[in-house]
Amino acid sequence: MKRGDPNGPFLATARGEFASRRPLWIMRQAGRYLPEYREVRAKMSFLELCKSPVAAADVTMQPLRRFDLDAAILFTDLMTPAEAMGVGLRYDPGPVLDRTVDSLEAVESMIVPDPERDISSMLETASLVRDELDEQKALIGFVGAPFTFACYLVEGRGSKHWDKVRRLMHGEPEVFDRLLTRITDCLEPLVPALVRSGCDAIQTFDSWAGVLSTEDYATRCAPHTDRLLRAAKDAGAVAIDFVNGVSQHLPTMHEAPADVLAVDWRLPMREIRARTDRVVQGNLDPTALFCDEAELRRKVAAICEAAGDRHIFNLGHGILPQVDPRAVEVVVEEVHR
Amino acid sequence: MKRGDPNGPFLATARGEFASRRPLWIMRQAGRYLPEYREVRAKMSFLELCKSPVAAADVTMQPLRRFDLDAAILFTDLMTPAEAMGVGLRYDPGPVLDRTVDSLEAVESMIVPDPERDISSMLETASLVRDELDEQKALIGFVGAPFTFACYLVEGRGSKHWDKVRRLMHGEPEVFDRLLTRITDCLEPLVPALVRSGCDAIQTFDSWAGVLSTEDYATRCAPHTDRLLRAAKDAGAVAIDFVNGVSQHLPTMHEAPADVLAVDWRLPMREIRARTDRVVQGNLDPTALFCDEAELRRKVAAICEAAGDRHIFNLGHGILPQVDPRAVEVVVEEVHR
Repeated sequence: MKRGDPNGPFLATARGEFASRRPLWIMRQAGRYLPEYREVRAKMSFLELCKSPVAAADVTMQPLRRFDLDAAILFTDLMTPAEAMGVGLRYDPGPVLDRTVDSLEAVESMIVPDPERDISSMLETASLVRDELDEQKALIGFVGAPFTFACYLVEGRGSKHWDKVRRLMHGEPEVFDRLLTRITDCLEPLVPALVRSGCDAIQTFDSWAGVLSTEDYATRCAPHTDRLLRAAKDAGAVAIDFVNGVSQHLPTMHEAPADVLAVDWRLPMREIRARTDRVVQGNLDPTALFCDEAELRRKVAAICEAAGDRHIFNLGHGILPQVDPRAVEVVVEEVHR
Repeated sequence: MKRGDPNGPFLATARGEFASRRPLWIMRQAGRYLPEYREVRAKMSFLELCKSPVAAADVTMQPLRRFDLDAAILFTDLMTPAEAMGVGLRYDPGPVLDRTVDSLEAVESMIVPDPERDISSMLETASLVRDELDEQKALIGFVGAPFTFACYLVEGRGSKHWDKVRRLMHGEPEVFDRLLTRITDCLEPLVPALVRSGCDAIQTFDSWAGVLSTEDYATRCAPHTDRLLRAAKDAGAVAIDFVNGVSQHLPTMHEAPADVLAVDWRLPMREIRARTDRVVQGNLDPTALFCDEAELRRKVAAICEAAGDRHIFNLGHGILPQVDPRAVEVVVEEVHR
């Protein structure tokens, strides 16, 4: 099995070691802002693409062919494992489930997948990418954080405020807690399987943790995410804890068993750095890519300066489809200047 | 014109003075969780109700007939002034505009309403409520904060992430800044008009400020909100600054020309209190009303204890339609215990 060089910029920085340059990747870097991605998607649906290792590996590599990035991130979606868990899944355009999981019976009926058998296309994609990828660059695999995974299972699809899952958390605490445990049981075996297939790092995505209070996140959700982060480290990979909600969750994140804390754009990097000495990833506002070039460069430089060396540059959330790829070039140039 | 007694619990606390008890009201307290409200709404649409002073005043008073609350809040929606600004408005069920306002031309074509002529039903409602309301209780009027108002004008309706308005903020800064100035020009005359009609307090609602970074909010949005807060104080009313996004905006809020900082549920009250000595309003998670009674009482008591005396109890956002009114009784009991 090929591996990323542990002394490459991304992996060295992630482990807190000296790196030859500040590493950089972009959340959702393989996506609709790239014409070559839209060309692939014109021929197949999102889910078909996720399940086609050759095409998914190609799409994963697309942004690295254009930009001097330090990591590839496996092309998939955090909800794709739901299908193997026995919850029917489609995309319209976000995830939509055939049935919601909001009772003890529904929770217990969820199947713990065998990744090698049930999620093999994702693992095959990872192997193909790792074979093609320069060893100086890292391959990042990812799983949904249990709370964010639960958001979709309980609501059945995307939601503005995730009220239903929050009502379940408070109204039926035993169902909520059992659900998060079960989701973690289901996702945990995927983590070492991804590492065995060539992923150098695993990022947990808690995309909707921002709707939670500090206490509810720390006591009811983060312990489940921590199991996945530990599984990544136990498998020998770098663990990245992305929480979209750093403003109230930074104290909890600071305690996470992760190598890297990945933060959103809401809190200024100088404040994040004042509150944690951990390696951080982020935190440019995705909509800052619509600024004029001088202002974009100013914002990128300010983040790098505030973060210091223990920093992997990234956006604070996924890149938007309307972005001009030229803006990404500007970011890459400025980070590597 | 009748007025609320400045020594009543709400107004005294809001002004930082001694109060006979901890005051309490509930955001969206006149709403769908009340069967008597649903009965009214079965007979007329939301917008019809907002424009019918007798019915709107009745609905405003409904929660005060059931619960021992310290303030009434005028029944209307933050977007209802949009109609008088020449932007067609309907509700489905949230606000939907006939046209979006995202160019300099569209901004300039917005009409500055004369509240007495163009928004008279809202003022008439205020007078009716003030006449009926016990003088120990305050009447709160409200306006949208300019950023949140802009969210709807730019997107045309509710949105999950408000990407379009954030893209405008960074991509066309002069249009964005002009839009917020124009919105403030339009809303500012409404503030003293509401006070003249009997409102003792004005709350600005920045419901969607949570999508913004600390810097963007502080430099591009809060100065406009501050104009509305100053207008309230200049008119002799208490000014309440509600920002749904306290986790990253508390330092900015702490500087606001407001009497009361109204905060969401995300940050624990003990941390808010450690970071500001201002009078605060909040901050129970609206979904905590689905907890069992013992847990709900524990959460309410913990907030009151952490906040100390300079505190108006409230939720951190609007009450949800699925709440059992009995849970509100529990909250009222516990706050007044």
